[in-house]
Amino acid sequence: MVDLIHVYLEDKGREFIDSIRDCRLMALYFIGSTKTSTIPGVSIAAASPELTLYTPACDVEYLVYGRPVSFDVIPVTPEGIPTPALITRAALTLSKIPYLIVDTGSYIEPKISHISLPSRYVGEKINSGKAIPYSKASGLYYESMTLAGMLASSCDLFVIGESIPGGTTTTLGILTGLGYSVWGMVSSAGPNNPHGLKKAIVKEGLVKSKLNAEEARRDPFKAVASLGDPVHVSMAGFLAGAISKGVKVVLAGGTQMAAVVAIAKHMGVDLSRNVVIGTTRWIIIDKSSDIIGLVKKIEPKVPIIAANLDFSFSPFEGLRYYEKGYVKEGVGAGGTVIASIAVRNIPLSTIISEIYREYERSVKTRGISKIT
Amino acid sequence: MVDLIHVYLEDKGREFIDSIRDCRLMALYFIGSTKTSTIPGVSIAAASPELTLYTPACDVEYLVYGRPVSFDVIPVTPEGIPTPALITRAALTLSKIPYLIVDTGSYIEPKISHISLPSRYVGEKINSGKAIPYSKASGLYYESMTLAGMLASSCDLFVIGESIPGGTTTTLGILTGLGYSVWGMVSSAGPNNPHGLKKAIVKEGLVKSKLNAEEARRDPFKAVASLGDPVHVSMAGFLAGAISKGVKVVLAGGTQMAAVVAIAKHMGVDLSRNVVIGTTRWIIIDKSSDIIGLVKKIEPKVPIIAANLDFSFSPFEGLRYYEKGYVKEGVGAGGTVIASIAVRNIPLSTIISEIYREYERSVKTRGISKIT
Repeated sequence: MVDLIHVYLEDKGREFIDSIRDCRLMALYFIGSTKTSTIPGVSIAAASPELTLYTPACDVEYLVYGRPVSFDVIPVTPEGIPTPALITRAALTLSKIPYLIVDTGSYIEPKISHISLPSRYVGEKINSGKAIPYSKASGLYYESMTLAGMLASSCDLFVIGESIPGGTTTTLGILTGLGYSVWGMVSSAGPNNPHGLKKAIVKEGLVKSKLNAEEARRDPFKAVASLGDPVHVSMAGFLAGAISKGVKVVLAGGTQMAAVVAIAKHMGVDLSRNVVIGTTRWIIIDKSSDIIGLVKKIEPKVPIIAANLDFSFSPFEGLRYYEKGYVKEGVGAGGTVIASIAVRNIPLSTIISEIYREYERSVKTRGISKIT
Repeated sequence: MVDLIHVYLEDKGREFIDSIRDCRLMALYFIGSTKTSTIPGVSIAAASPELTLYTPACDVEYLVYGRPVSFDVIPVTPEGIPTPALITRAALTLSKIPYLIVDTGSYIEPKISHISLPSRYVGEKINSGKAIPYSKASGLYYESMTLAGMLASSCDLFVIGESIPGGTTTTLGILTGLGYSVWGMVSSAGPNNPHGLKKAIVKEGLVKSKLNAEEARRDPFKAVASLGDPVHVSMAGFLAGAISKGVKVVLAGGTQMAAVVAIAKHMGVDLSRNVVIGTTRWIIIDKSSDIIGLVKKIEPKVPIIAANLDFSFSPFEGLRYYEKGYVKEGVGAGGTVIASIAVRNIPLSTIISEIYREYERSVKTRGISKIT
């Protein structure tokens, strides 16, 4: 069994992995909210649609402290399946990768030290066609770009992840706004991907916004302002800043990373080298989405690598649910595991054991209701 | 002429400097406000007492962008002498030391990406005896400690500086609250150190707070809550976190660093190694304050090193004013220059040339009214 699966552009992906062994790196987790996640059926990243607004802050509080602070429970799906931050936390515990949280517009401020972007903004429902003000989209991009510049000289590699419930729907919005036909290709945190609902939301927003795809390709902030969210444009700006300083980037996420790639591409960023998408096996085997198809359509030069995470034999049913199509990815889980393996030389089996330990600890201390 | 002056504990200081050559480092600048700075006569860190509340944000906006964003002018004294952030910026430009801004309670939020501490709080006038709520003092300490832990594994050295007008007065407050008799020993940003005013403010606050020095030594947050400010306790927490992870620290500042050392010491942090105070020659030659005396009283194991900055022969009168006792230190100027010399091997003469270039650029573009 291999620890890393080279899913797309294998040679280039291997070269990237070889180049980052023992390098200096930092992980940054971008959090933000879009009210799109409160539309019933869009997101299962919390026990109820309204609670998805609190998930990003709770995710990163849990990541740092091992327990949320703003609420007393670890984010779970309505079925009680825990946040992928659990995987990220286990990987960080072992690899000791330094990391920061970046608030791009979380509905509540996380109760941990975090980077605030001055233009942070909670995204509106994108079926309004008015997701975030144009000035905020532009501000988030350039503030993140500057942030990358402030940190660049200490790093050979940045791993950047996200927590934004509703993020695959806004990804569909951004890509559609930029003129890509990608219906049915984005992922979902559940086994039943609500493609119809997502399409209806995006189509409604597209009509209301009167967005012109050609104009949006010249100025992708227009697509973000109409149909996007605060997180992906911030990640794109950070990516642009990193690339301009010669720092490599792992885009740690699933199909949402296509939105990051698309915004950066249409901002003129050269993505032909120094960047890969790092995700989980669950995204790759997902029949309800198509990450390779997305990358091929948008920027076919970006390799995709997956951490070969498999919970089939987990002693915990809450984790075995991942094998049934739940959760799949988030809070940079896949990319953080990949960096722990590739940079720190930690075997995947060791990381999986740590995930089990972390799950058990979390169940014991608080927050996760064990599924029985 | 030497680039570095070993002012106190020379052997230990040299050993520290030798140990950090080419090390991995990061600088963090802690900003915050205390309304103490608006008491007329306390601070000359802006053109008027009220404007001192805006100086920390403007300082770091200038540091990042080369110009303030929130206001159109670079912070200057009433005489038009520019902020020491100019020195810091020049050193960072050459050394490319990665850096972050930490907001502990700035009166206005800086318009750049920055770390927010959840407990950030603008300090009240300390003659009230109620500087900041106890829970905020404690929160800032532990949030900063956690932050150091998040970043520690990428660094061998942290350089931590401050921007808080009124900070020497709150330093006097914290030290007095902890039972140290240090009247007349703290520095000032002007040639006429208002020791009498500072003493009167602290004495009034001390009486009103009913603070007991013995209790405060057991729980230094009490001294901070009565007579302190948000910045020094945050820096102390960060120092504690760094030391616990084996990361070295340059406390980049003047007599204010005595408050950081004192808080950490009474929190039980071992300061016998891995920490130095890094400041400027102007602090050392200042006849109106006594940094060596302060350190000897509080924690005599901490070396003091100064960057041998001298603007006597500067072509710009605005900088020659530094030789008349103006400004002296701030925004981590001395420590950042020391790190640029010691870690990056940049000669002081090169840094001084860059400071002159930066001064000229700033005068040309905006903000500094040239003194003629």
